[in-house]
Amino acid sequence: MALIVQKFGGTSVGSVEKIRGVAEKIKGFRDRGDSVVVVVSAMGGETDRLVDLADQVGKKPPLREMDVLLSTGEQVTISLLSMALQKIGVDAISFTGWQVPIKSDGAHGKARIESIDAEHLHAELDAGKVAVVAGFQGISPSNDITTLGRGGSDTTAVALAAALKADECQIYTDVDGVYTTDPRVVANARRLDQITFEEMLEMASLGSKVLQIRAVEFAGKYGVPLRVLHSVEPGPGTLITLEEAMEKPIVSGIAFTHDEAQLTVLGVPDRPGIAYALLGPIGEANIEVDMILQNVSGDSSSDYTLTDFTFTVHRADYERARELLEKAAKEHGAREVAGRTDISKVSLVGVGMRSHANVAARMFKALSDENINIRMISTTEIKISIVLEEKYMELAVRALHSAFDLDKEPEEVDSELTPQAEQ
Amino acid sequence: MALIVQKFGGTSVGSVEKIRGVAEKIKGFRDRGDSVVVVVSAMGGETDRLVDLADQVGKKPPLREMDVLLSTGEQVTISLLSMALQKIGVDAISFTGWQVPIKSDGAHGKARIESIDAEHLHAELDAGKVAVVAGFQGISPSNDITTLGRGGSDTTAVALAAALKADECQIYTDVDGVYTTDPRVVANARRLDQITFEEMLEMASLGSKVLQIRAVEFAGKYGVPLRVLHSVEPGPGTLITLEEAMEKPIVSGIAFTHDEAQLTVLGVPDRPGIAYALLGPIGEANIEVDMILQNVSGDSSSDYTLTDFTFTVHRADYERARELLEKAAKEHGAREVAGRTDISKVSLVGVGMRSHANVAARMFKALSDENINIRMISTTEIKISIVLEEKYMELAVRALHSAFDLDKEPEEVDSELTPQAEQ
Repeated sequence: MALIVQKFGGTSVGSVEKIRGVAEKIKGFRDRGDSVVVVVSAMGGETDRLVDLADQVGKKPPLREMDVLLSTGEQVTISLLSMALQKIGVDAISFTGWQVPIKSDGAHGKARIESIDAEHLHAELDAGKVAVVAGFQGISPSNDITTLGRGGSDTTAVALAAALKADECQIYTDVDGVYTTDPRVVANARRLDQITFEEMLEMASLGSKVLQIRAVEFAGKYGVPLRVLHSVEPGPGTLITLEEAMEKPIVSGIAFTHDEAQLTVLGVPDRPGIAYALLGPIGEANIEVDMILQNVSGDSSSDYTLTDFTFTVHRADYERARELLEKAAKEHGAREVAGRTDISKVSLVGVGMRSHANVAARMFKALSDENINIRMISTTEIKISIVLEEKYMELAVRALHSAFDLDKEPEEVDSELTPQAEQ
Repeated sequence: MALIVQKFGGTSVGSVEKIRGVAEKIKGFRDRGDSVVVVVSAMGGETDRLVDLADQVGKKPPLREMDVLLSTGEQVTISLLSMALQKIGVDAISFTGWQVPIKSDGAHGKARIESIDAEHLHAELDAGKVAVVAGFQGISPSNDITTLGRGGSDTTAVALAAALKADECQIYTDVDGVYTTDPRVVANARRLDQITFEEMLEMASLGSKVLQIRAVEFAGKYGVPLRVLHSVEPGPGTLITLEEAMEKPIVSGIAFTHDEAQLTVLGVPDRPGIAYALLGPIGEANIEVDMILQNVSGDSSSDYTLTDFTFTVHRADYERARELLEKAAKEHGAREVAGRTDISKVSLVGVGMRSHANVAARMFKALSDENINIRMISTTEIKISIVLEEKYMELAVRALHSAFDLDKEPEEVDSELTPQAEQ
């Protein structure tokens, strides 16, 4: 007898047949007495079709009109799903963004939800209806249709769950949960029953793209229990929650990204503001900078200290970033700029490592045993990231997955490993 | 410097290229200083695509959700046309039905407009923008999306013109105006510069389907000057107005319908309520009955008078209507039911015939000269309809077109014919 918000993405509602399947799934929850709010995306391919129409009119379409256009995609899905539900005897009613209303700011194409008036939804739920809400869209203070940006349907679902004080927000996807790492790399990667928001954020931003980061942040902020499930196959999925599991493993998962590039400025005079002077132009060019390291390398006998800066960018941004960096390096009297584009990043993620001191040591030993050279290291409370040569990446992920017993259930891990880790 | 409401139907906006053409046409009006509100339909074929999606979900979809679905069609067009206008330097802003708002009743699928709040539109027009409004849709008192029924975009345009007190409402179609009769039947049929609402209603309901009857009625009621024009070719079109032209011809046009069928009940006891008893079941079956004639035919020596009823229905409804009628005839003691399905209807239409007594006589003479037999006659103040064998229909239309000089301009007609007609 829970209140559940469920979100089905474009692939899950990609055809009338699939929409019928979604209706059957929802019926299962209604039959056991749950109240259900469903958030849906546009049918798979529909958004691309609409974007193509706009492109035919001309490049750079006005953003307000683009939102009017794109919001029709979800509107089609809510009507069809409501019809499919009623067809199988489940009372249902559709809501566009403005009908809820989901109030957003006026930033067309990337609007942020400001508030949700849940009164109308509650009334329909109380009347025994399933409320089918268009994801990805809102209404601005000036009564204009807005969109939350592509993939924003996850955010709609979480925001609705928060506004309705729902018991759970379920995101149905094409995977059956969050895994310890990518099963394509490690065959015995294991589905996690539970993971914390912090861990999920680190996993997501590092490449395990199951959920929109923005939706996870939002869910964490409002304490909305979030569950990732497969849209067709049955199963419990992975619950993303504020609470840490009683028997929490040290490491929950291993994330990785392939296409990294490394840039180093060598022999920079170590003055206040020098980091900003070097990285500022790169940020202004909208190039995302990831790991940043600084080492003092200067000759202590000279008048001023020299320092080295190293950071990583996405490989696609390497050439442009290097150009900007060389210009800045020259202006600020640095010795030289070096870089390489054959690197990857591997990260251990887990709230358990907060209380286990030697995780890094065990990580480095596992990699050393495989003769893998570490080029950069960066740590946070719940994450240790290393940069290594790309060709070693998969070997590293497998070695770490095994070293931290991620293929075993947490109970086994605890009894077997925790004492050892605390020695 | 006029305020003009323009309506472009599905064919006129059937592709992005055509939408660009519409934008160019609108630009012409803006360039000469007019304020323009544009009403558009869904792109040709789009409504059928949406209906097909709903059909795939199941027959008889819930009407509320059907409106949510269908209203996306116009929403796509308003955004694309607004983009196309801005692309060529014409400032424009789109409006869905609820954004205007166009307030309707809650009869989904066939809603009626109750009121239009023109304040928001006026503000955008005053700011120099073209307002692009979705036709065919409104918002109900309970905040639901409604549709006005297929083809309701004409009504939207007329209602907006009335609310805005526009100088003219222009309906762009695939014909360049209203003709004296169908040019496919009479080669020298002539485009009318002007026609009255009454005449237009008779012409439209009799088969010259250029405009939605409902829109013409609405325009007549609110005195909105309505102009029918070709969406691509230039030209003045036909102005439909309250005012009669100074030099008004007797007959403005000839309308006709092919697929008629005639049903006659012979020898019905002439009791009060007998017409309802016979025709009631047919009306209840949603079969439209057109011309109804009654002749007393009974033997005056018998105890009660006998009467004959004759009426016409659409040929597709003939079998069902005959079945219902035979049952009713039997119950009420009628002698027999006869019928035929090879008939057509031809009508002379013109406000000028109000003041010309012998129009009917001239009509019958023209038909007699061609040896065409008249089977039924029905008249109103501005219309004379006859039913005849279908095979004579085209000959009759041509004979009448020539007899009333419809191929000549009104001035010529007047000087030549009016005195003769009034002899």
